[in-house]
Amino acid sequence: MGRIRRLVLDTLKPHEPSIIAMAEELSVLEGISAVNISIYEIDRKVENAKITIEGESISYPLVLEVIEEMGGAVHSIDEVVAGKKIIDDAVTLQD
Amino acid sequence: MGRIRRLVLDTLKPHEPSIIAMAEELSVLEGISAVNISIYEIDRKVENAKITIEGESISYPLVLEVIEEMGGAVHSIDEVVAGKKIIDDAVTLQD
Amino acid sequence: MGRIRRLVLDTLKPHEPSIIAMAEELSVLEGISAVNISIYEIDRKVENAKITIEGESISYPLVLEVIEEMGGAVHSIDEVVAGKKIIDDAVTLQD
Amino acid sequence: MGRIRRLVLDTLKPHEPSIIAMAEELSVLEGISAVNISIYEIDRKVENAKITIEGESISYPLVLEVIEEMGGAVHSIDEVVAGKKIIDDAVTLQD
Amino acid sequence: MGRIRRLVLDTLKPHEPSIIAMAEELSVLEGISAVNISIYEIDRKVENAKITIEGESISYPLVLEVIEEMGGAVHSIDEVVAGKKIIDDAVTLQD
Amino acid sequence: MGRIRRLVLDTLKPHEPSIIAMAEELSVLEGISAVNISIYEIDRKVENAKITIEGESISYPLVLEVIEEMGGAVHSIDEVVAGKKIIDDAVTLQD
Amino acid sequence: MGRIRRLVLDTLKPHEPSIIAMAEELSVLEGISAVNISIYEIDRKVENAKITIEGESISYPLVLEVIEEMGGAVHSIDEVVAGKKIIDDAVTLQD
Repeated sequence: MGRIRRLVLDTLKPHEPSIIAMAEELSVLEGISAVNISIYEIDRKVENAKITIEGESISYPLVLEVIEEMGGAVHSIDEVVAGKKIIDDAVTLQD
Repeated sequence: MGRIRRLVLDTLKPHEPSIIAMAEELSVLEGISAVNISIYEIDRKVENAKITIEGESISYPLVLEVIEEMGGAVHSIDEVVAGKKIIDDAVTLQD
Repeated sequence: MGRIRRLVLDTLKPHEPSIIAMAEELSVLEGISAVNISIYEIDRKVENAKITIEGESISYPLVLEVIEEMGGAVHSIDEVVAGKKIIDDAVTLQD
Repeated sequence: MGRIRRLVLDTLKPHEPSIIAMAEELSVLEGISAVNISIYEIDRKVENAKITIEGESISYPLVLEVIEEMGGAVHSIDEVVAGKKIIDDAVTLQD
Repeated sequence: MGRIRRLVLDTLKPHEPSIIAMAEELSVLEGISAVNISIYEIDRKVENAKITIEGESISYPLVLEVIEEMGGAVHSIDEVVAGKKIIDDAVTLQD
Repeated sequence: MGRIRRLVLDTLKPHEPSIIAMAEELSVLEGISAVNISIYEIDRKVENAKITIEGESISYPLVLEVIEEMGGAVHSIDEVVAGKKIIDDAVTLQD
Repeated sequence: MGRIRRLVLDTLKPHEPSIIAMAEELSVLEGISAVNISIYEIDRKVENAKITIEGESISYPLVLEVIEEMGGAVHSIDEVVAGKKIIDDAVTLQD
């Protein structure tokens, strides 16, 4: 099976536990080397967080388990990179 | 025959199997080193995915087979790079 | 526990002590290698400062303690990076 | 005679043969190291393709022959680079 | 105490002494490696200058002394970087 | 005398000889290492070409001779770089 | 005295001598390594030229002498860099 090298997730989560706690939890999962969590909208009870994960071999089920255990939900998977290295989507004349 | 080094495809696919599964499948094809799948529109039943593939020698028939076996369809081939290395299209005064 | 490598905080603080004093104090905390404090709005009595902190292992409680001892308050935590290296959030077709 | 190192061509071509076949054919011509073909407009019967070619010594007559044999036509030559290395046009205060 | 590595100052100064003289004076202060002075507005009697200073360990009191001795005034301190290296403020989804 | 390292010329030329021929001719002049010719406007009989030339020591009289022998005319010299290396114009707060 | 490493000058000059001649003259002054002259406006009798000079130790009086001997005038000094290295002005949240 191919190795997942980057995942970008659009998530909704309660304010607590904080994105600091969530980044710490995700970053120690096997096969993950770095986690970036950025807030793009804050409401009274919840916040929308964009989660970017990079690593040698990311397990989405384990990632999802951590997010849901902390009360979060994944709205959509916006980008996936698999293979021997990480590439961005190529900018084309259609974009 | 020249070697295909990058392909950028505009595709339509059902939500399942996910882009994670599709990226995993594509990334293990012979001659492919990395696959980026980015969602740019989501409808109730389908999603539009931009697929960027890079490698030493990409076989489009094999790529198409995987996409179609997973229920997807290729709308258009937006960019192709062939040769000894990968180059972007040059930005000109006409763009 | 995972290591926090970057924190971006939106803060409110009185003009005194200055952001020079605050940057000096934060930069000597254990596990911190660099601190950037940028002012984005100035009022008569207070100023809004965006604080970016990078390091090998940042302790948010210690950071918060320094900010509050100097009369400041953290409005929101805008970005957190954890893991073996620092990554930015990936730019996607959804952004 | 000076060596042509980059050519950027604005072309019109039928959908078949595909840009994959055309990139493969062009990339194996003597003196060519990489070919990028990007589609910028698609009609019912034809497509507009921007072709960027780089190499050690590109022969325009051979390139033109391949494009025309595949049913394509060159609308205009938008950029040419010749010499010991490839340079972009310098961005000036007049642009 | 932490070391100040970059200071960005918004200043007002008379036309004379020139920003050449001021840059020369500031650049020889202990702990300073480079000074950039950029004019962003010119009036009949005064000019607004943005001063960017980088170094191993910048003393703000000494910097202020030089600016004031030359007839200038610091309107605001817009950015401070302290620590073992210089980092820019991280671009976030809130910017 | 100082060495000219980059010239950017705004020129008008007939369609024939082509910019391919002109780039080839210019690129073999003594002291020139690379020539970029980009078309920015095409009329029925003539085309406007931006010519960027880089090298160790460019002779403008020789460049002008080639352009005029091929039926072209130099409208303006938009940028000149001289010295031991090539630098772009610095972007300032006045731009 | 501190060393001037970069100067950006806004100048007005007659069409002759050309910016080629002026760049050649300036580039051979002691302490100067590169000169970029870019035209940003052309009138019937004069032209506005932005002059960027970089070097190990630039003498403004010598630079001014060359510009004035060639019939030019310095409107304003837009940017000065002094010190052990060249830095750009830092982009801040105030810009």
